[in-house]
Amino acid sequence: MKPGKVFSHVGQAFPGGAYDYVIVGGGRLGLAVAFYLRRAIPEARVLIVEQSGIPSEGGALLHARGVWHSADLPPGKLAQATWARQVWQDPEAETGTRRPHDPRFQPVGWARALNVASEDTEDHFHGEGLALLEPQAFLSKFSPDAREQLGTLLDWSRIGAVQFDAQGGYGSATSLALSYGYGAVRLGADLLLNTEARLHPGAVELRRLDITPRMEVVVAQTLRVPCAHLIVAAGSEGPALLESDLGLVCPHGRAYAQFPRLELPPAAGIPVISRAGFTVRSGEGGFRVLPAAAPGGDPPEYQPCGGRLTGVPVGVRREILDELLLSLPDWPAFEGGALNLGKTVVDVPGGWEARPRGGWPLWRHVADNVTLLLGGLESDRLGLPTALDLAYELAGIAGRPWHDV
Amino acid sequence: MKPGKVFSHVGQAFPGGAYDYVIVGGGRLGLAVAFYLRRAIPEARVLIVEQSGIPSEGGALLHARGVWHSADLPPGKLAQATWARQVWQDPEAETGTRRPHDPRFQPVGWARALNVASEDTEDHFHGEGLALLEPQAFLSKFSPDAREQLGTLLDWSRIGAVQFDAQGGYGSATSLALSYGYGAVRLGADLLLNTEARLHPGAVELRRLDITPRMEVVVAQTLRVPCAHLIVAAGSEGPALLESDLGLVCPHGRAYAQFPRLELPPAAGIPVISRAGFTVRSGEGGFRVLPAAAPGGDPPEYQPCGGRLTGVPVGVRREILDELLLSLPDWPAFEGGALNLGKTVVDVPGGWEARPRGGWPLWRHVADNVTLLLGGLESDRLGLPTALDLAYELAGIAGRPWHDV
Repeated sequence: MKPGKVFSHVGQAFPGGAYDYVIVGGGRLGLAVAFYLRRAIPEARVLIVEQSGIPSEGGALLHARGVWHSADLPPGKLAQATWARQVWQDPEAETGTRRPHDPRFQPVGWARALNVASEDTEDHFHGEGLALLEPQAFLSKFSPDAREQLGTLLDWSRIGAVQFDAQGGYGSATSLALSYGYGAVRLGADLLLNTEARLHPGAVELRRLDITPRMEVVVAQTLRVPCAHLIVAAGSEGPALLESDLGLVCPHGRAYAQFPRLELPPAAGIPVISRAGFTVRSGEGGFRVLPAAAPGGDPPEYQPCGGRLTGVPVGVRREILDELLLSLPDWPAFEGGALNLGKTVVDVPGGWEARPRGGWPLWRHVADNVTLLLGGLESDRLGLPTALDLAYELAGIAGRPWHDV
Repeated sequence: MKPGKVFSHVGQAFPGGAYDYVIVGGGRLGLAVAFYLRRAIPEARVLIVEQSGIPSEGGALLHARGVWHSADLPPGKLAQATWARQVWQDPEAETGTRRPHDPRFQPVGWARALNVASEDTEDHFHGEGLALLEPQAFLSKFSPDAREQLGTLLDWSRIGAVQFDAQGGYGSATSLALSYGYGAVRLGADLLLNTEARLHPGAVELRRLDITPRMEVVVAQTLRVPCAHLIVAAGSEGPALLESDLGLVCPHGRAYAQFPRLELPPAAGIPVISRAGFTVRSGEGGFRVLPAAAPGGDPPEYQPCGGRLTGVPVGVRREILDELLLSLPDWPAFEGGALNLGKTVVDVPGGWEARPRGGWPLWRHVADNVTLLLGGLESDRLGLPTALDLAYELAGIAGRPWHDV
């Protein structure tokens, strides 16, 4: 099979021509759907259009939470998530792409600290690897170093039980997406970087961007390619693009998520911990603090900005600050100087996350030959299965590589 | 008992002097807590400070939803809500204030249209007057005129059951608040209008406002009154005031709610109807469309503004537009020209609503002798009981006029 081409700058002539599938957005879902389309329909001409690079600077992929666990999944989705974890643990087997120096999935386990071992919890108890443990039994699973650090992170005297998924862990969403990107190109998809897409019925207008010596971004070339089917996988910008260009109203929210850092060197093998609205996982020499679903959707007019605390500016937005303040009794580690709140919004890593209706990643045919593909908060667990599902649906393939339980 | 005094403009000399209770905010909860404090502790010196008039132009009271029903209440709160309805139906009996020309509570009934008579519904089935009816049995309770209009509002072919509260209805929150305001002054509370309050430990700085001939609002007089106990009942601005003035961080949200109008003359006796994220009630010659909890809390930086629909500006914010679009199959009445979306935000009635943690109205001692009183979405049903509860707590009275079930 002849590989596709990557066009990263306007110096490379792009021949144009008609495509069967144009995918707008080279994020995790866009690259995965391109890969599966080429694998399922080898004769399909597939083009991925990305306005920036991979990972896109403004998108959700760069700052993706990157956490996997099996809790709170309805039975029909557990099989999909389990399949996604297997892919994450060995992307080479799925995509045929070797990237030996990329960070790999870390199966350190995932734990949620609970007040009591309530029946509410058992309602959400679907993961095969999930166990409900006494706090001491949980802590005894780890090395003395990790145990000591767990003791400084969380106030265990407030914890009645721990929901533990030994198969949980964290990984790099970017690395996984790159595997699919290389895989898609290897299977014959073309990839056009630094190119904006404007949508038209049956065609896509491509605006190849360039940077002048004065650092202005300009449209250096405009061309139009006919396409039989359009897939919009542009993250939180996708619904707005469909509305502005094609007049298709697709109500979906988006929110600017931020991830403060806890500047403590992580002990080896320390698990991902979830408690009181926050998930904390190690990474890059410290810990990333992942807020829960909060903040909800932001108004369309919201511009990301930091918050103020009794008048003093900090980089973390106010809604997350509120949650941090409320969770101090649970997380003593947040109270010292180790929590880096930044001084302005640029000091705190963050990005726009989509908020699909219903909470789960989804695809939806919003017009004839136009499909919206949207990830959101659950992309780490269900993004890939959703992309595969769309590709197989378009290819007319009935089976799926997971088995519903 | 000697009545209190109302100081509405700086031309009236305000003598100052110490107060036992200063209540910041002359909304529904502030006026009610003042009334109950004076009734419970006749010797207490009580001052209400309101930055505007009553109702305050920027506050939630003016645009309060004004709907009462008994669904979805936990048992402990049902008794409180039932008591609140009795007060609303006859405020004179409770407050001793006669305002015969004010709009009265309209016991037209409240109905929620459901897909099916599911068990989920029965979980929330606590009102004594609540019934679960077949749609036809529900419709047959109304006059032919009302029945016909109900048929044009909602697509009843999509409705499987109706949860009906014959004791539900709607009323004017402003009128109820005024009853309490007059009552509080009659019982001896002082009321200072057009006055901003800045908080200090043990004292309140009062800034009496005036309007110059050039329509500028200026501080015309500043004075400081000692107060033994401070109650902040300033609606969605209360937590921010406590934080900026006293450094007390009280995480709570706020949201700008808007109420589009459905320009159809209401049939007599038409009930309040709730369905698919919206409640519609008659009022002022048309219907008010009340969105559900959406939008959630807004970021602190949000400025109310209208939305855009495929590029065309409208007065209703985008989040509510999304919900309206999604509910069109349920509410055919929203589709014609009768729904008034306005052209800019000023065309659509709306105001800032508090979003207390947990959803229910609450009071909380946030420092020694400083109490936050916060209403939010459930103020129509539980605001007054919360205000009474705080007053009785401060007075050391054990009983409450409602009986928990």
